[in-house]
Amino acid sequence: MTDASHSQADETQLAEPHLGAVLASAGLDAEYVRAEGNTLYQRAEDGREIPVLDYAGGYGSLMWGHNHPTIVAYAKELLDAGVPVHSQFSLHPEAAELALALSRIVRRESGYDEPYFAVFANTGAEANEAAVKHAEMDRVIRLGALLAAVDDGLTEAREAVRDGSAIIPDEVFARVGMGSRVSDTAALNELVHHITTHNAAQAGRPPVFLTPEGSFHGKLVSTVQLTHNEGYRNPFKALAAQARFVPLGQPGALRKIADEERAQLLGLEVVDGLVRLTEHEAPVVCAFVLEPIQGEGGIREMPREFVEEIHEVCAELGAPVIVDEIQSGMGRTGDFLAGTRLGLRGDYYTLAKSLGGGLAKISVLMVRSSRYQGQFELIHSSTFAKDGFSNRIALKVLELLEADDGAAYRRAAELGDRLLAMLGSVRDDYPDVVKDVRGRGLLLGLEFHDQSGAPAAPVAEAARAGLFGYLVAGHLLRGHRLRTFPTASAPDTLRFEPSLLLSDDEISWLETALRDTCDIIRGGYQRPLALPGA
Amino acid sequence: MTDASHSQADETQLAEPHLGAVLASAGLDAEYVRAEGNTLYQRAEDGREIPVLDYAGGYGSLMWGHNHPTIVAYAKELLDAGVPVHSQFSLHPEAAELALALSRIVRRESGYDEPYFAVFANTGAEANEAAVKHAEMDRVIRLGALLAAVDDGLTEAREAVRDGSAIIPDEVFARVGMGSRVSDTAALNELVHHITTHNAAQAGRPPVFLTPEGSFHGKLVSTVQLTHNEGYRNPFKALAAQARFVPLGQPGALRKIADEERAQLLGLEVVDGLVRLTEHEAPVVCAFVLEPIQGEGGIREMPREFVEEIHEVCAELGAPVIVDEIQSGMGRTGDFLAGTRLGLRGDYYTLAKSLGGGLAKISVLMVRSSRYQGQFELIHSSTFAKDGFSNRIALKVLELLEADDGAAYRRAAELGDRLLAMLGSVRDDYPDVVKDVRGRGLLLGLEFHDQSGAPAAPVAEAARAGLFGYLVAGHLLRGHRLRTFPTASAPDTLRFEPSLLLSDDEISWLETALRDTCDIIRGGYQRPLALPGA
Repeated sequence: MTDASHSQADETQLAEPHLGAVLASAGLDAEYVRAEGNTLYQRAEDGREIPVLDYAGGYGSLMWGHNHPTIVAYAKELLDAGVPVHSQFSLHPEAAELALALSRIVRRESGYDEPYFAVFANTGAEANEAAVKHAEMDRVIRLGALLAAVDDGLTEAREAVRDGSAIIPDEVFARVGMGSRVSDTAALNELVHHITTHNAAQAGRPPVFLTPEGSFHGKLVSTVQLTHNEGYRNPFKALAAQARFVPLGQPGALRKIADEERAQLLGLEVVDGLVRLTEHEAPVVCAFVLEPIQGEGGIREMPREFVEEIHEVCAELGAPVIVDEIQSGMGRTGDFLAGTRLGLRGDYYTLAKSLGGGLAKISVLMVRSSRYQGQFELIHSSTFAKDGFSNRIALKVLELLEADDGAAYRRAAELGDRLLAMLGSVRDDYPDVVKDVRGRGLLLGLEFHDQSGAPAAPVAEAARAGLFGYLVAGHLLRGHRLRTFPTASAPDTLRFEPSLLLSDDEISWLETALRDTCDIIRGGYQRPLALPGA
Repeated sequence: MTDASHSQADETQLAEPHLGAVLASAGLDAEYVRAEGNTLYQRAEDGREIPVLDYAGGYGSLMWGHNHPTIVAYAKELLDAGVPVHSQFSLHPEAAELALALSRIVRRESGYDEPYFAVFANTGAEANEAAVKHAEMDRVIRLGALLAAVDDGLTEAREAVRDGSAIIPDEVFARVGMGSRVSDTAALNELVHHITTHNAAQAGRPPVFLTPEGSFHGKLVSTVQLTHNEGYRNPFKALAAQARFVPLGQPGALRKIADEERAQLLGLEVVDGLVRLTEHEAPVVCAFVLEPIQGEGGIREMPREFVEEIHEVCAELGAPVIVDEIQSGMGRTGDFLAGTRLGLRGDYYTLAKSLGGGLAKISVLMVRSSRYQGQFELIHSSTFAKDGFSNRIALKVLELLEADDGAAYRRAAELGDRLLAMLGSVRDDYPDVVKDVRGRGLLLGLEFHDQSGAPAAPVAEAARAGLFGYLVAGHLLRGHRLRTFPTASAPDTLRFEPSLLLSDDEISWLETALRDTCDIIRGGYQRPLALPGA
């Protein structure tokens, strides 16, 4: 093998170089050498550390900040103790303990008085994939039971007609479009054939997932189809079952979409010597999947009325409500679950990100016991999941969260209020620049007015390409040593997801940076954003 | 919320209790408190540690054993240094270094003289999902380019017929079943309509993946469809694109299946004043996906002739060869890639398991540069992927593997030879009990003869339920303090995947345990397997 045909330069940029170029174009090509609390450190040429204040917070993974001393110390303790990481297919008392702790918390907050079973995975997207699989397994089981019951009815009707104990009235033939017929075996066979053909077509319809517009549930093959952003989703449409995206702020829209997806199976029953046609709702909608507060979609809280509509429609459909608390959960909004204050009741919950304490990769799917299919455990697994290291780190995270009767939750709510008040004051002072501030606790967003008509051509161009938020992020980093990013699918909105360690100084730091940015925007970019080449 | 409606007993078993019951029924319900090298330790009632020799090796994740001192020390160093774990969307020089190191190794072994680009993920299944997405993106781009070229030809033909510079001969009408027609605009329009309708149908066919029978590529929504075991796959069929499974040991079977999936688009060209029909192969087959040595499928090495057939057919189809080295790679078979000795040339490689050194959760998809779609970087990502901790642990693993001019690879080959020789001697002494021993390096299997006619009723019953291997595993654990499992989809085969630290004593320990097991089987189970209640 010779290396001659490719230059060294080509070969040294093999880890996502196109992404690197995009980062560089917005001035986001920073390298960090150390991390602590809300601070990431760059290394200057003279060797000094340059602190950067981190409001991106690992996209919600750093509820306890970077390298929290308690969690780091515990991780080292686990390593020193030689805790088994890979002991698949054995007893895991610490996993049982974690499941129990999570079940108690979820039960306390969900409003369902039932235990939740835990299925372990490694990442948020994997937990959502497990949720999709579990919901589909459950749907297929329910569909199978329904088809079996329908079949029993057909058999019963067939026998009753054959032995003369029942006849088929004309209205039955009419309802399946057969016209008037004598109630004999030939007509019965034709009727049954009609019904089974109809049922096979309806039962064979692919499962459909319902999820709100703006949703983000991951980027694996199935989960990316639950993610509204077309750029992420469309190239892979042919690979997985589809979602229908329900618009927000349109009461009744969910019901309309659900009605469009409804399918009826037909059956027969015998009542008083007459064969009657029966109708049975077939489960086509596999699940409703939502984030209580959309993260990537622009920090948007679901309206309460929408939550009520979801509960109602899903109860009618018999479909589970899957609540994705991967980013919003683990205390970030002032409760363990962001859905709690919305009265949201999930049949399933998916948890990840901050559950790993900023060190471990762990995710969990929780399923309400009365909707849980135990056989799922025997056909779903992952080599890396349920490992002794991650389980224990997650237990430590729960211990920190629940300590002192939930002091951490109260702290998150209080810090969030302070941060939101500051953002509100910026919006009040720059209503021509800032369109909205929103969110709850330590999951906040600030949306700029559209800049696609900005007087500075490069800014307008970036805005039209959906990159305005990245320009602002570049300016905040280069001009103010402050790290944050736009929400991926709503790029005019900046995200703020600091840790519980947030200080008043750090809030002021952000305020200064945002007011400076707003001044530049209001001033028509006469002073340019701090960017490469600017 | 009150806890009254559910008993405490219910609530304390929420982490996969059904799996726990299955473990208990085979005597596999062990709990491990510490792990080191090839040993997992249980805790006896009197507090002593009871060593269990681990041949399961974290399902292939423990090439360097449990808690390898060098890797653990390095992990602690990273924690002490406060290395940033979550610094998404920044420069990652250590990721670039890892990509470069992997590219050089893969290039050295794959036979392709090109760099490989790296896409980062967290688990083996996630890397395979990324491979599926990348292959589909590439397929859709190729299909789009083909449709555009066909469209150009149609436009050219349309203009030539309209301006009278070309006519459509009868044979063209005949070939699309239109019969004899005058070459006028109406006939042209009908012809073009026929062609575009045909093309839309062919281009709209869902992507198909080809993979050998016995394959295992993960259990996420898409990857589980590439996993042959029906129990894992069938319940989720409606969720994702389908694979066709190619039988092993049937030369020509791959070509036959590929031919069945072929689709031709139609086009028009103008040559010498005549409109001619053209045919263009549309990419329906998205990729061929294989493990060089199937793990869960029973430790089965792909035959060389099959590898050659794969190369030929994929070259004809223009489809990438995706080589899943998640379990077989990272040096386990005596080379970094198990495919190397088979002459297997992958367009994509997926790596995980031992890449994380038994501590980190990391996986990488490598894509040959000439088949790489750079825009994939902008639409695929994962919060937990490409983190500073895992990247560095993986670099340390590569450093260990490549040290001393590949001493670790030579050691794996040599230990594997010794272990295989021992297994061969057991097979030779018990040909009535042991059907086959196979594999390479530290990825070996021993297959028992079918026991579904065994004289001991419980054994025969277990064998008929596909659980015989688990009974043996329970006996090895309870009777010999030795841990291994059957390969999941070929449960009469035991897997042996020890680490590089394997000693002669540990090989003898296994030999004693296997000979004892074979004696019991040969003796018609007059002495029972050591199991709960046995």
